[in-house]
Amino acid sequence: MKLWQKENTVTSEKIERFTVGKDREMDLNLAEFDVLGNLAHATMLESIGLLTADELTSLREVLKEIYGQVEKGEFTIEDGVEDVHSQVELMLTRKLGDTGKKIHSGRSRNDQVLVDMKLYTRHRLFEVVKATEKLFAILSKKSEEHKNDLLPGYTHLQIAMPSSFGLWFGAYAEGLIDDVIQLNAAFRLANRNPLGSGAGYGSSFPLNRQMTTELLGFEGMHRNVVYAQMSRGRTEQAALTAISSLAATVSRLAMDVCLYNSQNFGFVVLPDDLTTGSSIMPHKKNPDVAELLRAKTNRMKALPMEVTMVLSNLPSGYHRDMQLLKEILMPAFDEILDCLDIATFMLEHMKVKQNLLDDAKYDLLFSVERVNELVINGVPFRDAYKQVGAEIGDGSYTAPRELKHTHEGSIGNLQTQEIEARMEREIEAFGFDKISATLERLLKM
Amino acid sequence: MKLWQKENTVTSEKIERFTVGKDREMDLNLAEFDVLGNLAHATMLESIGLLTADELTSLREVLKEIYGQVEKGEFTIEDGVEDVHSQVELMLTRKLGDTGKKIHSGRSRNDQVLVDMKLYTRHRLFEVVKATEKLFAILSKKSEEHKNDLLPGYTHLQIAMPSSFGLWFGAYAEGLIDDVIQLNAAFRLANRNPLGSGAGYGSSFPLNRQMTTELLGFEGMHRNVVYAQMSRGRTEQAALTAISSLAATVSRLAMDVCLYNSQNFGFVVLPDDLTTGSSIMPHKKNPDVAELLRAKTNRMKALPMEVTMVLSNLPSGYHRDMQLLKEILMPAFDEILDCLDIATFMLEHMKVKQNLLDDAKYDLLFSVERVNELVINGVPFRDAYKQVGAEIGDGSYTAPRELKHTHEGSIGNLQTQEIEARMEREIEAFGFDKISATLERLLKM
Amino acid sequence: MKLWQKENTVTSEKIERFTVGKDREMDLNLAEFDVLGNLAHATMLESIGLLTADELTSLREVLKEIYGQVEKGEFTIEDGVEDVHSQVELMLTRKLGDTGKKIHSGRSRNDQVLVDMKLYTRHRLFEVVKATEKLFAILSKKSEEHKNDLLPGYTHLQIAMPSSFGLWFGAYAEGLIDDVIQLNAAFRLANRNPLGSGAGYGSSFPLNRQMTTELLGFEGMHRNVVYAQMSRGRTEQAALTAISSLAATVSRLAMDVCLYNSQNFGFVVLPDDLTTGSSIMPHKKNPDVAELLRAKTNRMKALPMEVTMVLSNLPSGYHRDMQLLKEILMPAFDEILDCLDIATFMLEHMKVKQNLLDDAKYDLLFSVERVNELVINGVPFRDAYKQVGAEIGDGSYTAPRELKHTHEGSIGNLQTQEIEARMEREIEAFGFDKISATLERLLKM
Amino acid sequence: MKLWQKENTVTSEKIERFTVGKDREMDLNLAEFDVLGNLAHATMLESIGLLTADELTSLREVLKEIYGQVEKGEFTIEDGVEDVHSQVELMLTRKLGDTGKKIHSGRSRNDQVLVDMKLYTRHRLFEVVKATEKLFAILSKKSEEHKNDLLPGYTHLQIAMPSSFGLWFGAYAEGLIDDVIQLNAAFRLANRNPLGSGAGYGSSFPLNRQMTTELLGFEGMHRNVVYAQMSRGRTEQAALTAISSLAATVSRLAMDVCLYNSQNFGFVVLPDDLTTGSSIMPHKKNPDVAELLRAKTNRMKALPMEVTMVLSNLPSGYHRDMQLLKEILMPAFDEILDCLDIATFMLEHMKVKQNLLDDAKYDLLFSVERVNELVINGVPFRDAYKQVGAEIGDGSYTAPRELKHTHEGSIGNLQTQEIEARMEREIEAFGFDKISATLERLLKM
Repeated sequence: MKLWQKENTVTSEKIERFTVGKDREMDLNLAEFDVLGNLAHATMLESIGLLTADELTSLREVLKEIYGQVEKGEFTIEDGVEDVHSQVELMLTRKLGDTGKKIHSGRSRNDQVLVDMKLYTRHRLFEVVKATEKLFAILSKKSEEHKNDLLPGYTHLQIAMPSSFGLWFGAYAEGLIDDVIQLNAAFRLANRNPLGSGAGYGSSFPLNRQMTTELLGFEGMHRNVVYAQMSRGRTEQAALTAISSLAATVSRLAMDVCLYNSQNFGFVVLPDDLTTGSSIMPHKKNPDVAELLRAKTNRMKALPMEVTMVLSNLPSGYHRDMQLLKEILMPAFDEILDCLDIATFMLEHMKVKQNLLDDAKYDLLFSVERVNELVINGVPFRDAYKQVGAEIGDGSYTAPRELKHTHEGSIGNLQTQEIEARMEREIEAFGFDKISATLERLLKM
Repeated sequence: MKLWQKENTVTSEKIERFTVGKDREMDLNLAEFDVLGNLAHATMLESIGLLTADELTSLREVLKEIYGQVEKGEFTIEDGVEDVHSQVELMLTRKLGDTGKKIHSGRSRNDQVLVDMKLYTRHRLFEVVKATEKLFAILSKKSEEHKNDLLPGYTHLQIAMPSSFGLWFGAYAEGLIDDVIQLNAAFRLANRNPLGSGAGYGSSFPLNRQMTTELLGFEGMHRNVVYAQMSRGRTEQAALTAISSLAATVSRLAMDVCLYNSQNFGFVVLPDDLTTGSSIMPHKKNPDVAELLRAKTNRMKALPMEVTMVLSNLPSGYHRDMQLLKEILMPAFDEILDCLDIATFMLEHMKVKQNLLDDAKYDLLFSVERVNELVINGVPFRDAYKQVGAEIGDGSYTAPRELKHTHEGSIGNLQTQEIEARMEREIEAFGFDKISATLERLLKM
Repeated sequence: MKLWQKENTVTSEKIERFTVGKDREMDLNLAEFDVLGNLAHATMLESIGLLTADELTSLREVLKEIYGQVEKGEFTIEDGVEDVHSQVELMLTRKLGDTGKKIHSGRSRNDQVLVDMKLYTRHRLFEVVKATEKLFAILSKKSEEHKNDLLPGYTHLQIAMPSSFGLWFGAYAEGLIDDVIQLNAAFRLANRNPLGSGAGYGSSFPLNRQMTTELLGFEGMHRNVVYAQMSRGRTEQAALTAISSLAATVSRLAMDVCLYNSQNFGFVVLPDDLTTGSSIMPHKKNPDVAELLRAKTNRMKALPMEVTMVLSNLPSGYHRDMQLLKEILMPAFDEILDCLDIATFMLEHMKVKQNLLDDAKYDLLFSVERVNELVINGVPFRDAYKQVGAEIGDGSYTAPRELKHTHEGSIGNLQTQEIEARMEREIEAFGFDKISATLERLLKM
Repeated sequence: MKLWQKENTVTSEKIERFTVGKDREMDLNLAEFDVLGNLAHATMLESIGLLTADELTSLREVLKEIYGQVEKGEFTIEDGVEDVHSQVELMLTRKLGDTGKKIHSGRSRNDQVLVDMKLYTRHRLFEVVKATEKLFAILSKKSEEHKNDLLPGYTHLQIAMPSSFGLWFGAYAEGLIDDVIQLNAAFRLANRNPLGSGAGYGSSFPLNRQMTTELLGFEGMHRNVVYAQMSRGRTEQAALTAISSLAATVSRLAMDVCLYNSQNFGFVVLPDDLTTGSSIMPHKKNPDVAELLRAKTNRMKALPMEVTMVLSNLPSGYHRDMQLLKEILMPAFDEILDCLDIATFMLEHMKVKQNLLDDAKYDLLFSVERVNELVINGVPFRDAYKQVGAEIGDGSYTAPRELKHTHEGSIGNLQTQEIEARMEREIEAFGFDKISATLERLLKM
């Protein structure tokens, strides 16, 4: 069944396969949101007299039934049905006849897909934020646990100054706050109501768009109907950009782990569960999990480009090209959630080596401490720098191993609580709770 | 002069050229911000007893002098001086001797570059937002002016439903709000103080980082010093991502203009100033400005990839690779500002054609209006859709040319004021005024 | 079963899922090539005394059996078996005991994957070339068929000079030759034997690498064993680069079709099978197939970036990251073949409109003809150009509609045969026939 | 002076700056090739009667004079002249009056740019190949010099098997052959004559395109004139793709150097000239040159994307967007040549450490040697693997430090000569000598 099928058309199977592609599979992810969109649209249609109160009541009943099926994992798109929107409409029409047909008044498949994608993206960004919070929590915890375990600090991959596992874990924790800020921008782009924009040119029905905006818990609406349509692709792009930024944080962490796990560094130890052997070298314990984490998150950095490729130089107005965006966006959410989960798991089980700086090869890490000692005793910085250089040259340098870092964010003052408090504030800014409450109300109406 | 130069080293000219690259040219852009960072750092050093009050006074005096030179365009980086930071320190030392040398206490060139880049990026994002506001204003104005000038609306590049120049201009206006939201996320990443992080591992001096944070008007600080260093590249990446998103909006607008200016559409007219001729075809008026606008903004979409390429799989800690980011970021700001300016100019001078829909070839645009007439008279949507299809088939269809679109954001109700109000709120959220006031205070201390 | 599994290790299911990923599914594509690699390796091992003649005979027999299973689609990777290489070795060991175990002598899983990937990539590039040849054939045929059907030629999307469908179809045909040249470079990178490189550091066995090179029909070997390993990723990158270039050709063709099919151009007609309708506009015939073709091929242009992302800044030596490359490469072959097939199908069924240039709006297309008339009569080019400009200005211009283009590649002299002959030569350069013959010999030994 | 300037047009300065951009600066690179194209075009025009023999003689004379100016670096594009093509035509017209004006007959600026860009790209690819050959030579030389200096071989960044500097240098040498193959594909795309295609739709003059093809030493012509125009962008894309592939080889080498230079590896030593110090750490010797080499070559990997961004979804026919491609392509050639030069310089001066494997921490590198000993004594591979695993577990393993690798491409048999011979063959395939001879003939005519 296609909503637009002309009776005299025989679409060949080859074309069918090419045009539908993975769309039916992807669309299953939208079922939940399609029902919510239908509930809001129907409620609004009744309010402007395009549905009677009774029609609305019966539509709601069937829609809630469908929602229940989705929740139980029983919802399917039947063979020959093109997409989730057609399937839901078909189910309504089967049960309610003409009433089911009326629900498409004042909307187009274009704004149906749009509103479903907005609700879907908003929801999945919520999941990503939650998983990010978990990774943040383990990083923060490990940072505190290992605040006294020193680590060589590198610049240019050269031994530079003393660092600590406290700093290292804490750095990635704080970095996730910036990712959450970028996720929030993407979230705000997703959190706008496009319903009522029809095929991108609005409708002659006196739709109440403010009403559906409130029913669905959106921050506001995309007012201009042409822009509502143009937001297709942008929403996906923004979400994927934020995801790829988060992926970049995780990939850098994974790179550090791979390096620190090499025998030439030997800073961290991965449990056997997280390593694999070799088919010819009996001694190997390879950090495959960290490597695949690195690879998968690195690959994700190309995601925004895929969207850009599809959208580039398309004139305004809908094009079927946009259908492909689902295939780019949806698996990306699964992949980032998977990677965040594995990263959290890996960090939980990874051990760090202690007393690393006792090794004499790390003596030079303390050269700045020596410079600073001189500065505190009144030697101008540039002169102290030269003196210590000379000491290193003639062998008279000895490493002052006592660290007295006290300022905000330094080895001796990690400020974990302040960082945690900031993360909390940034997550609160999403307003997830209010949205959940609104959707629950819609489902109970 | 290099701050680190070992006396027994002769760096060959070839290497010099390769390593310094465009850095000195780029660094001129940082002079203003380097002075600000120095002022804040010196003030803080005095507060913790590493400078005397007299030393601070004389440092401030010379720094303000240098600031004056920068403002007058008289600041230069002398031959043989490696970068802006060395130049400023050299000028201080020339005038103040040992006092000049003391200002590097408690910091490294790494956090100096970092703070300069943060202040620079913050400032240029401000400029981009201001230029975006101008483009928004002309789009918004044109939208109101042409709200009654109808335009064919397309989906799939096929004639679809009636649209208007009001909707078309207004769509791009509203789209810029989403760009401003993404710019704000980038702005927030730039608006964090890294000063005090040294080479990425902090300092044993009892620095007061909160003080420099406040003096420089930052929203807050990057607490963890390792993360402060890791924010290098991320800040640039976030800014370029927001810029590339804005560029995508402009490129799409330019594509529409190129298409609508083709004789086969003929919807807009560019003045002679904005067109060029051909070397062999005497009849040509080519929309080169719109095309170059499209090309330049499209090219900008690759900018985030350039940063990604440089940063990918670099372990944590500073690497010289990051120096290259300046060359990617700085010209991008110039380019986007140029493109926004030209886009604004082009829109100001572009004329739109009127009465386009009188042409019979656009009759079918009104088919949905006909369907809706039937629906309002009680025919279920799906049946009305079939009936109008039949009318088109048998030639009995006549286009109901009167449009009655009234809902929010539709042809008859553009909601320009609401959109303008929202843009205003989003721009206010940056807090530009407060930052300016803070920096002025710092310069007057 | 894992070849490296330590007995005291319990790998959690979560990790298993994450590390194996889609690898078993992907590996099914390699079964055919893994058997070929095994046949060559075993033959070589016998030649250097690491297998007896009898052992070789029995190994060959079982390997050919497995090959038969693959051909019949009956080959599977059993639950708990990690990859195709383990599965084949397991089947050999089950049947032949110790003899089966011996076949891994002198190689590592790394060079097994490598040789499988080389053979696989070589084979699929062959398929891509063949599909490209088909698309070329239809373009070439249509070019000849429509050599007299004129078309407006555009520059800057502005009406420029007369073109023809003959030129337009023929242009895309000739363009495919350049794609074939790029495919050939990728093919040559794939057509090198890595077998014998072990885990990237060779073997202490006296392997005869020249022998396996000849048995598998490779152009030559990657000599340096470290480089053989480093070719992992490069081979994939080269193949995907060539594919993305071919995709770019197809996407541009699809863009032209979408544009030319718009009512505002109206140059081509797509049959109903290749268009779809709208859920709300009863009059629509949307070119969804052309749009999806455009979108899918555009998306493919990001493929090389995905590989780049995974490989960037990985030090030399194998990393598990490379496993992910299969998931990028393998579906790309399916996708490009699908797109080439649909493009061929679409062109076969697309109709072109005739007598397009009779429309007065295209009169100016002939202005250069008018200039050239004057030049041929002795007016210097620049003066003739000005005169015709003046004629257009004062309305005295009349279009000289007779075209006399005779030079190579012009409207009147398409040189289809020359282009076809060149394509044939470029395809012959691959030497597909020789490779097929070699592999058949190996299977009959 | 603009060739197309309408007398009543005042182009504002703002627009001038935006449209001309860096074009005049870029165009200086084309002067040499523009003269060559003019020489060939004039010669051909005379052969078909559009120039007299005397006119040709005088045109040749002035063109050779201009060529001389270019060679001496004295050629400039005068203020107010739009591009190199206008400048050359202006110089001809100044000296020769009407004869100068006649040279534009039968061509358009579009095919002039095209032929210039083809000749330019062909020439610069030649330079890149030559520079690649130099890098190859030093790698090859170092490989032979250090064939007995062992190095730990890594997989997964874990100690794996013995390698050598001979293998490591040699691997990068052999890798460059694959780069040369990809450069050759790009070269072949550049080495096609577009002259005669006019503005993309040919000419009504009876041009002899075969003649200009031969005069300019092209492999052949782009026959179809529409395709000749469509090759704009493709040629650039192919060149940049090959360059970015070569850049990837160099970046990987630079990454290895940065890592091997870290104290935690300590495999190579960079001379002081190639390292820099720190502003706060007196002990630092940072490998800035290697890092910048890595960064610059990594950045270059985004180049093909820039072109893709500009070209995506442009319909066929020339668009001004293509002008921007010069700015992407031309600096890329300078940058890759610079990087190849510095890489060659760095390798020449880099020292390698000897006897690295004497360190006990590398004992496990020899575990496969131990397995192979057992296999040679008749133990099936899988059993030997288990036995050695057990030996490592119980501490009875001793490293058999004698290496007996003899097969092609292994530590003991680097096959440097075979690799060098292959590189020579691949470079010969370009046919540079023949092209040079042809161009010299053209200049002497």
